[in-house]
Amino acid sequence: MKAVGIIAEFNPFHNGHRFILNHAKHKSQAEVLIVVMSGNFLQRGEPAIITKWQRTKAALAAGADLVIELPFVSAIESAENFALGAINLLHDFRCDTLCFGTEKGEALPYDELAAFYHQNEDSFNLIIKKKLENNIPYGIAVTQTWEELTASRWPTFDLRQPNILLGFHYALANHIGENPMELLPLNRIGANHNDATATDESFASGTAIRQLLLRGEKSDSYIPLSTQTLLEGTDLHSWEDYWPLLHYQLCIQSPENIAKLHNIVEGIEYRLIACAKKASSFAEWLSQVKTKRYTTNRIQRMALSILIQLTEDEFSYHQQHPYHHVLGMTKKGQAYLGHYKKVLRYPLISTFSKAPAGITNLDERATTLYQLPFNKLDDNDYTNGVIRV
Amino acid sequence: MKAVGIIAEFNPFHNGHRFILNHAKHKSQAEVLIVVMSGNFLQRGEPAIITKWQRTKAALAAGADLVIELPFVSAIESAENFALGAINLLHDFRCDTLCFGTEKGEALPYDELAAFYHQNEDSFNLIIKKKLENNIPYGIAVTQTWEELTASRWPTFDLRQPNILLGFHYALANHIGENPMELLPLNRIGANHNDATATDESFASGTAIRQLLLRGEKSDSYIPLSTQTLLEGTDLHSWEDYWPLLHYQLCIQSPENIAKLHNIVEGIEYRLIACAKKASSFAEWLSQVKTKRYTTNRIQRMALSILIQLTEDEFSYHQQHPYHHVLGMTKKGQAYLGHYKKVLRYPLISTFSKAPAGITNLDERATTLYQLPFNKLDDNDYTNGVIRV
Repeated sequence: MKAVGIIAEFNPFHNGHRFILNHAKHKSQAEVLIVVMSGNFLQRGEPAIITKWQRTKAALAAGADLVIELPFVSAIESAENFALGAINLLHDFRCDTLCFGTEKGEALPYDELAAFYHQNEDSFNLIIKKKLENNIPYGIAVTQTWEELTASRWPTFDLRQPNILLGFHYALANHIGENPMELLPLNRIGANHNDATATDESFASGTAIRQLLLRGEKSDSYIPLSTQTLLEGTDLHSWEDYWPLLHYQLCIQSPENIAKLHNIVEGIEYRLIACAKKASSFAEWLSQVKTKRYTTNRIQRMALSILIQLTEDEFSYHQQHPYHHVLGMTKKGQAYLGHYKKVLRYPLISTFSKAPAGITNLDERATTLYQLPFNKLDDNDYTNGVIRV
Repeated sequence: MKAVGIIAEFNPFHNGHRFILNHAKHKSQAEVLIVVMSGNFLQRGEPAIITKWQRTKAALAAGADLVIELPFVSAIESAENFALGAINLLHDFRCDTLCFGTEKGEALPYDELAAFYHQNEDSFNLIIKKKLENNIPYGIAVTQTWEELTASRWPTFDLRQPNILLGFHYALANHIGENPMELLPLNRIGANHNDATATDESFASGTAIRQLLLRGEKSDSYIPLSTQTLLEGTDLHSWEDYWPLLHYQLCIQSPENIAKLHNIVEGIEYRLIACAKKASSFAEWLSQVKTKRYTTNRIQRMALSILIQLTEDEFSYHQQHPYHHVLGMTKKGQAYLGHYKKVLRYPLISTFSKAPAGITNLDERATTLYQLPFNKLDDNDYTNGVIRV
């Protein structure tokens, strides 16, 4: 069975996602559509607006055959680790094609770019090293180096565009795998990824839709009917719901303990703590902590580490122990799983109660944390079985 | 100047306390009344209903000349450590007399009891050891041993009465000091310490008064006018206010991390965590965790350790670094301080900003924690100076 893979957050599932799912199946001519979807916490270091089970239902209603959870240790990471974790799972599932959305403009030759990188890795690293010695932050050093080396050949290759950055890292991770997938970049239509306002009649970015939802305004024209139904009367999660808990942790834990957590670097713990003592909301704290070097996403990822108390050791352990958590499937998805489950390198888990000891601990904790402010601890990874349609 | 000392919580200050303050000054014929008062968290492992600054005002209004904070590491401990910490401070202040309330009935010869204990310490410990070997919990083993050895000579000496237990530990701690104080036990009048209902026209226990206050009922007849004024429109603190934070910590921290905290013994961490996952309030959690061996007070002390993340190392450090934090004083109290401050063994601190590095850390954190659910972080140990009347 030919399979096409998609890596997604669906926060929430909107018309732009539906467009990509339709085109992915159509253009790849695959029989099965596999989605690797982040769990309850996302790449920008924030909670998903609705649960992973609700988002799975929306994805299945829009044509996905198999929805697999991208574990916390990959889901909340910056582009490189996020891509490595997700591509790794799709490789294990023997996907033939990877389809992903990219910013407006002609789709770039991602395969060529990945090959170019791997051929020139040493010179890249040398230039980056020099920039780091001149105190240029890592992310900026990488972007500058790429610009210097590729601008003449690929002028539209702009790593500042989040989906170009992601697509590039998908290509890099795909390139080093045993059986690389065919890459199928699709031009995103409608609004850009981060646009805060809706600009098109039926397409708006996730950011714009979340803001509409959180303000209690109408967003029906941007989301399919299945998502609309899921959103009715449900809890909408945002960072502010977790602020009292983060605030408490920042006020109580010693700087030494916070410094031991994943993603906390360079003495930033003192700044995080000092700002917490003065802030009265997450937004206020974030705006006080933020600098040119420490972007919103980076700080939010640190905040998540503190909130869930993720040590570097625990992070490494889970990164080295990937697994497939099946959130949902169609009959076709189930048949596909039945066909490949014996050759999978990583454990296939349909219920946490039967998982090998230890490997699901962090994702279980992430769900508990996600549900805490809403008193919904009963709605968890044990009580939610695989969603079947 | 002759000084009489009192060890108190004033939670809140009521007519029973006023009675003891009056009699302490009168019977001891002291010129100065020194109160060592617990800060924002108390011996039963719970938050004080109102802040330490409010309770200081009430004490000063009722005749105290000097109010010194009993640091967190002593204030939240069971009778033995509580008494050691408090008596130690009073000894350093060269108090002549210690006045304390004791349960109804004739006041016991506490000095004699302390001397009897110190003469027979070895035989006591031998009997207790045997009981522990028979799996009798420590507290019960101590009480039983005392009963066996003293019932014929002192039939009213019942260590199950909280104030007899405290008085006895005051006497023990006093007995080992360089300049023991004269002991002045006073029969408590009106309600017993733990009585949950008010039984007398003008005297009710702290427990009964707190329940009236938290239910929003009238308690004016049991408390002096000065306390009544302080209570008007103020935040009333109870464990339920801290439950979301404790709940979060119990859901997020690993059993291994919780086991490292002070007072967490014998694998109880698994029970604490398991019950937290099912409970929806502090009261519910407490009733589920409670057993014969683990009393309410003991569990509440554990809960406090978890809430404030107090490790055994930190506890030891602070126990070995006592200090005098002056919460309030009259002119007479100030004169007394002026006279003795040069001979004090422990640092005298009127503002945390001038304290020796490290020693006030835990008490500062306790205040932050206490204020967190009420968004009153500005009302802290830096912004509150010594209260002078």
